[in-house]
Amino acid sequence: MMEKLTLHEFSQSGNCYKIRLTAALLGLKLERREYDIGKGETRTAEFLANVNANGRIPVLQVGDRFLPESNAACWYLADGTALIPEDRFDRADMLRWMFFEQYNHEPNVATLRFWLAFVGEAALSEAQRAQIGPKRAAGDAALKLMDEHLAARSWFVGERLSLADVALYAYTHVAEEGGFDLSAYPAVGEWLQRVAAEPGYVPMAA
Amino acid sequence: MMEKLTLHEFSQSGNCYKIRLTAALLGLKLERREYDIGKGETRTAEFLANVNANGRIPVLQVGDRFLPESNAACWYLADGTALIPEDRFDRADMLRWMFFEQYNHEPNVATLRFWLAFVGEAALSEAQRAQIGPKRAAGDAALKLMDEHLAARSWFVGERLSLADVALYAYTHVAEEGGFDLSAYPAVGEWLQRVAAEPGYVPMAA
Repeated sequence: MMEKLTLHEFSQSGNCYKIRLTAALLGLKLERREYDIGKGETRTAEFLANVNANGRIPVLQVGDRFLPESNAACWYLADGTALIPEDRFDRADMLRWMFFEQYNHEPNVATLRFWLAFVGEAALSEAQRAQIGPKRAAGDAALKLMDEHLAARSWFVGERLSLADVALYAYTHVAEEGGFDLSAYPAVGEWLQRVAAEPGYVPMAA
Repeated sequence: MMEKLTLHEFSQSGNCYKIRLTAALLGLKLERREYDIGKGETRTAEFLANVNANGRIPVLQVGDRFLPESNAACWYLADGTALIPEDRFDRADMLRWMFFEQYNHEPNVATLRFWLAFVGEAALSEAQRAQIGPKRAAGDAALKLMDEHLAARSWFVGERLSLADVALYAYTHVAEEGGFDLSAYPAVGEWLQRVAAEPGYVPMAA
């Protein structure tokens, strides 16, 4: 029996959606507590002391313990289930794509979505504006790598959906909100449809 | 019995050292193949086609399969050993610190070390130079978070060294090469000594 699960989140964040999607695919119930990151609600003294000293969401609360980092929270929920491959190499290879997601994909694809669709280009600092070009190039490189990997396979690792797919789906399926053209990545487009057809799938807005 | 292990690396990279340190702590033998990243040896057509389409080291080769991403490679080596906690929450919490390392620590602490100690400040682009201040602040924030976490505990997770410590040790112990002042983080300093005293420990230069 799992302890009570509470997701501290900003629901439009792909990092938060990953955790909801993992829970939905597993049939697990999550309580949800919403924070307005635009109003600094994850930087209050109370949040920093009690939820996450790093001032970020998502945080998965398990009973009275707090687990930051979206991909770690997905792992916690999926540990021992078919969303994590049993084969030793495949399990590490799944983590490989999850680290790729946080290092090569999220800081580019997710950040441009946040800057352009949430903050607004006019409100960006000059330093942020100077990063748009490099982040566009790095985000497209990440999408191209995914497209080439998926050209001859249905899922990132092995023969079925794993947390690697969940992690990469979250920001990829809304990449156009950040100005990325997904029609340039046809294998990615087909894979997005496969993920959305999985039993238990929930959309980001649910 | 594990297949033959070959580390494709640039030995002065902390990301590569993590994998050597994990192998040493576990008594595993790694063959090593060195690449000169300054000469673009990880961007050749042969490397991209056969080792890592992402053009990066480290890559852990397991028999004839290739595993990029340093923390995923550490996981592969340590899977089923005491370097990964048995407790479900602790195991996810270890991954939490490994994702923190790749998202909040490495892009700041490691990148400034690379820029200042390897490339040289005079050779940086204007865009890179504009990133020094933000990366300094973000790197110090990561070190402060680590210092506060370690103030009342010996290891990042649970009661013994795990992959979380290995991952965070790699670039923290050479952070001064990137201009960070570790004397500001006394709990980090004591933890660095604890890691270096572990049976099987090998230094970065070994």
